[in-house]
Amino acid sequence: MTLETAPWASPTARDRMARVASQLGAPTPEAVAGTVQRALRAHARQYDTEGIVLYAGTNVMSSAARAVTDPQVGERPSMGWPGEKYQSGLDHLDVLEVLAPSLMCRLLGARFAEVRSHSATMANLAVYTALAEPGDTIAVLPERAGGHTSHHAVGAPGVRGLRVVDLPYDAGALDVDLAELGPFLERERPRLVVIGASLLLFPHDVAAIAERAHAAGALLLYDASHMAGLVAAGRFQRPLAEGADVLTFSTYKSFGGPPGGVVATDDPAIAERVSAAVFPGLTANYDAARLAPLAVTAAEILADDGAYADRCTAAARTLAEALEREGFAVAGAARGYTASHHVALDVAGLGGGRAAMDRLAAAGIYLSAIGLPWQAPGEPDRGLRLGTQEVVRRGFGADDLRRTAALMGDVLLRGAAPGPIRKTAVHLRREIAHRAG
Amino acid sequence: MTLETAPWASPTARDRMARVASQLGAPTPEAVAGTVQRALRAHARQYDTEGIVLYAGTNVMSSAARAVTDPQVGERPSMGWPGEKYQSGLDHLDVLEVLAPSLMCRLLGARFAEVRSHSATMANLAVYTALAEPGDTIAVLPERAGGHTSHHAVGAPGVRGLRVVDLPYDAGALDVDLAELGPFLERERPRLVVIGASLLLFPHDVAAIAERAHAAGALLLYDASHMAGLVAAGRFQRPLAEGADVLTFSTYKSFGGPPGGVVATDDPAIAERVSAAVFPGLTANYDAARLAPLAVTAAEILADDGAYADRCTAAARTLAEALEREGFAVAGAARGYTASHHVALDVAGLGGGRAAMDRLAAAGIYLSAIGLPWQAPGEPDRGLRLGTQEVVRRGFGADDLRRTAALMGDVLLRGAAPGPIRKTAVHLRREIAHRAG
Repeated sequence: MTLETAPWASPTARDRMARVASQLGAPTPEAVAGTVQRALRAHARQYDTEGIVLYAGTNVMSSAARAVTDPQVGERPSMGWPGEKYQSGLDHLDVLEVLAPSLMCRLLGARFAEVRSHSATMANLAVYTALAEPGDTIAVLPERAGGHTSHHAVGAPGVRGLRVVDLPYDAGALDVDLAELGPFLERERPRLVVIGASLLLFPHDVAAIAERAHAAGALLLYDASHMAGLVAAGRFQRPLAEGADVLTFSTYKSFGGPPGGVVATDDPAIAERVSAAVFPGLTANYDAARLAPLAVTAAEILADDGAYADRCTAAARTLAEALEREGFAVAGAARGYTASHHVALDVAGLGGGRAAMDRLAAAGIYLSAIGLPWQAPGEPDRGLRLGTQEVVRRGFGADDLRRTAALMGDVLLRGAAPGPIRKTAVHLRREIAHRAG
Repeated sequence: MTLETAPWASPTARDRMARVASQLGAPTPEAVAGTVQRALRAHARQYDTEGIVLYAGTNVMSSAARAVTDPQVGERPSMGWPGEKYQSGLDHLDVLEVLAPSLMCRLLGARFAEVRSHSATMANLAVYTALAEPGDTIAVLPERAGGHTSHHAVGAPGVRGLRVVDLPYDAGALDVDLAELGPFLERERPRLVVIGASLLLFPHDVAAIAERAHAAGALLLYDASHMAGLVAAGRFQRPLAEGADVLTFSTYKSFGGPPGGVVATDDPAIAERVSAAVFPGLTANYDAARLAPLAVTAAEILADDGAYADRCTAAARTLAEALEREGFAVAGAARGYTASHHVALDVAGLGGGRAAMDRLAAAGIYLSAIGLPWQAPGEPDRGLRLGTQEVVRRGFGADDLRRTAALMGDVLLRGAAPGPIRKTAVHLRREIAHRAG
């Protein structure tokens, strides 16, 4: 196995891949199964069991959702609507195909929910395909304001051949610049305005943005990939009710279900076009296995009445306050830090986001660097993003969050070596797991 | 739950969905979990345990591959190359990210393998994105000749904004019409020629097609979604060695692994562009969980030395001969019926493909209708497609296949009621499962 996976990658990546490749051993089934099992076990131990996961783009499913995850179902392509599928013999999967979107509609207060996208990136691409033609313009949040890759030209809009322009942004308000928006839309004439960010501390002013978008002949897409767990619980904001034409989101992250993407709308014409873009546009086998844990997760959110969402938001505020007391520069301080499960730190003075993320990883605390709206063009990500959706599921209480903030302070502010701190972090995780049973 | 999933669907589909919706019960977590579990159990019993699955687009994974399937890993987005990922803490997943493409390259004798696509449809879209611009033309097999949805304008090429034209096809040779191909390509000037079909009884003349494509300035994509298990085993044909520029395929079907898509090529410039189209073009979280069973499956195929592929092909010939003796019109008779694991029947005289498929489903035999190259434009699918990849894994021997052919004859040729035949089919499946241990 001497071939190089990606000779065009950076020297750092090529070095790492060459090192990994040199340790792979023989390609026999036994050796490969052994290698794979060791990697999965080591990963699960480091990340799931011992790690303090504050990365905002992940989660763990509930035990009830895990219990209905049957990968074999994903090997059974189920193409077309129940009653007229391309395949025979899949009648019992019809139940999942009606149940999952039905529960999703109820959760979101939406008329239509398309649940067959493999991911939120695919859900966004389905919306672009349904509502814009190659050469059309879409207007999205700048990357430094949390605009996701799947909103930018390097991602799904580039696949669709769209022209992508950055929306005017008000770094003080942490939202689209409403004063600039009208003239900007008149000038750029986008078919679609995309909001909803990878870092979102406070709700967008959806009503005002929608009003201006509609006045300029544009539709409004709200990508709630990160906020879906809150939005579905009736918290944070109600993008469709407030004026967005389409809602997309990722079904794991704060939503807490299996990986996958959803498109929801109240407009039957949009729903029909999105549906055709998902199948047959973007999928043949959409992986029906996902729908079982998705339906169970949706029912859990319905029954939960916002309790998990509220715990996530409260945990974020607790963490933000504790981090500020440690001496970190926490974003949004004047407005109470956050109204979501996200927290952002400005670590430009501590070597920048990437260096801080790596140092925390060495201490067993996992999160990501992120751009912040006030960083200069071309400046490397100066922020750290934290999400509480997983630690809340793991049973972290207020005191655990404060201890986590203190460990972060030790590593990033007080120069402690990450190695010993990692031992303390693992101990904390074990203590919480033990307490949570 | 009174909302309609898809009011734009056909009356048949709307009726079925309304009937399913009326039986869903309360949206409580307990009721939903119960509904989901009952649906999954009933599906597994009907399809996996009792069904005779001759549907060509599916399979079951090996027990070793199933054993390393951990859905939680799919909730951990792993974005970017090992050594420079957007996320921290995922170092152990680097092993899967190097191992899976490395084994795939070895299997295919290819320099590069991109394994992160969610599906073969996505893999094809990545190739379209990498190698063609919106407005460009691609030339594909007509639907009646097995051209897949993801090759046609209604599918992924439409998402990319491509113009799609049908290749000239020789229904006698069951291949692209080589005499017409040169002038056709000069006229249409496609950027890409796509071959590899959803029904493929005999190898394409890849060398001749590649020569003409290249002479006209087009690249050649071979979609081996159905043939991947044979191609990876060194059987059927070697598309890259024979002249194709890019190979895509689905990793379950005859390959027998988890759902997913692969793009392979020997050309570093194509590989780099495809890689960027897959990430960040089409994926953020690509679902790393798939790579574990994919690597194990690839190692099994390597060690198997073509034995499973040969059993699948031999089973297809046995089945084809038995079906002809029953009185069916089997395609490809003059050339020995098939050189792959596919068999095709012309059932135009038996009410057409769809009616025959439904009647067989009532008898517990699952397969699909398909177009045949000699059907008239607009004529409904006149064929049935059978694949042996699953029944071979289930332990069907030659005699079992002959008994299956006899059951099909009873139902479709001799007017037997499907209900009683289903009992015999279930009995046969149980007998084989018992024998296979």
